[in-house]
Amino acid sequence: MPKLWNETIDAHRRAVHDATLDAAAALVAKHGLLSVTMAKIAEETGIGRATLYKYFPDVKAILVAWHERQVTGHLEHLIAIRDMAGDAGERIEAVLEAYAFISHEHHGTELAARLHRGEHVARAQHHLHQLIRDLLAEGAATGDLRNDVAPDELATYCLHALTAASSLPSKAAVRRLVTVTLAGLRPRG
Amino acid sequence: MPKLWNETIDAHRRAVHDATLDAAAALVAKHGLLSVTMAKIAEETGIGRATLYKYFPDVKAILVAWHERQVTGHLEHLIAIRDMAGDAGERIEAVLEAYAFISHEHHGTELAARLHRGEHVARAQHHLHQLIRDLLAEGAATGDLRNDVAPDELATYCLHALTAASSLPSKAAVRRLVTVTLAGLRPRG
Repeated sequence: MPKLWNETIDAHRRAVHDATLDAAAALVAKHGLLSVTMAKIAEETGIGRATLYKYFPDVKAILVAWHERQVTGHLEHLIAIRDMAGDAGERIEAVLEAYAFISHEHHGTELAARLHRGEHVARAQHHLHQLIRDLLAEGAATGDLRNDVAPDELATYCLHALTAASSLPSKAAVRRLVTVTLAGLRPRG
Repeated sequence: MPKLWNETIDAHRRAVHDATLDAAAALVAKHGLLSVTMAKIAEETGIGRATLYKYFPDVKAILVAWHERQVTGHLEHLIAIRDMAGDAGERIEAVLEAYAFISHEHHGTELAARLHRGEHVARAQHHLHQLIRDLLAEGAATGDLRNDVAPDELATYCLHALTAASSLPSKAAVRRLVTVTLAGLRPRG
């Protein structure tokens, strides 16, 4: 680790913050949502309880912060994929497949269901909608994708169709879902 | 009304039952979910409160029964459309459009959100999934629809894609959603 950076107070705070989120998520995964307490998180991280309370008021705040970090990570991943080389058709395919895999892998947990009501999720969904809409508009302009339906409506279609990924049994099934969803986006002819 | 029939006890019970559901739904629509009481339903129907309690233990039971009736009606409507003349491609289009309009018209109410967690909804969804799956299998066999993805997976795709109808602003937008969703079902070529 770069020493100069890690020696700053900011970096220390960041390290405590991140370690706390990691510990809380690991405890939920191992023992379930209801069994996680501030005491257990303190024990797991080796941070004193008094210090922990300086960072977070309760377990819920830690889990919301953890989920915000997850959602931000997923969004950055999708933005990186969007920015890869390729025509609009290839890039929309790559973004939709990546999103479908995220839905598939993070589906159905009790934690996800509770945290998904948060405002940070609505913001991320809005951002994702715009990202996909802009790619669809680009594809419509180049002729790779249909241009008879507004990109906004097509983005709504994509995001709803791909939520099916969370109930599919395999990665192969998720890939087929992406293929079928993309077929809906092709130019008419 | 046919007299002989209406004179039977069964028919009387059915009439009281239906009038109760209608009154409860009308009161919710007019005054909101929380303002509805057994007393108001009794007043609205002209049924005595004591009689009303012989039929239903509480407001929730009435609303669940009302919603079951709604869901059953929607399912019967979709079955009737499936049984109309036409090839599989035309029939799946008609069924999906009808389902999308149902989602569009009944979306987003507080009541719907609460009642949709009920088991009768899960049963109806299962029934609908089978109905659509069977039509898709028929279409795959006749060559109207794609046959490279299992009908079960295609049905999951359809039902998820069409949930977008509940957030669309107009019937025209719903029709475009159905067009795009159907495009995903066409044979590859």
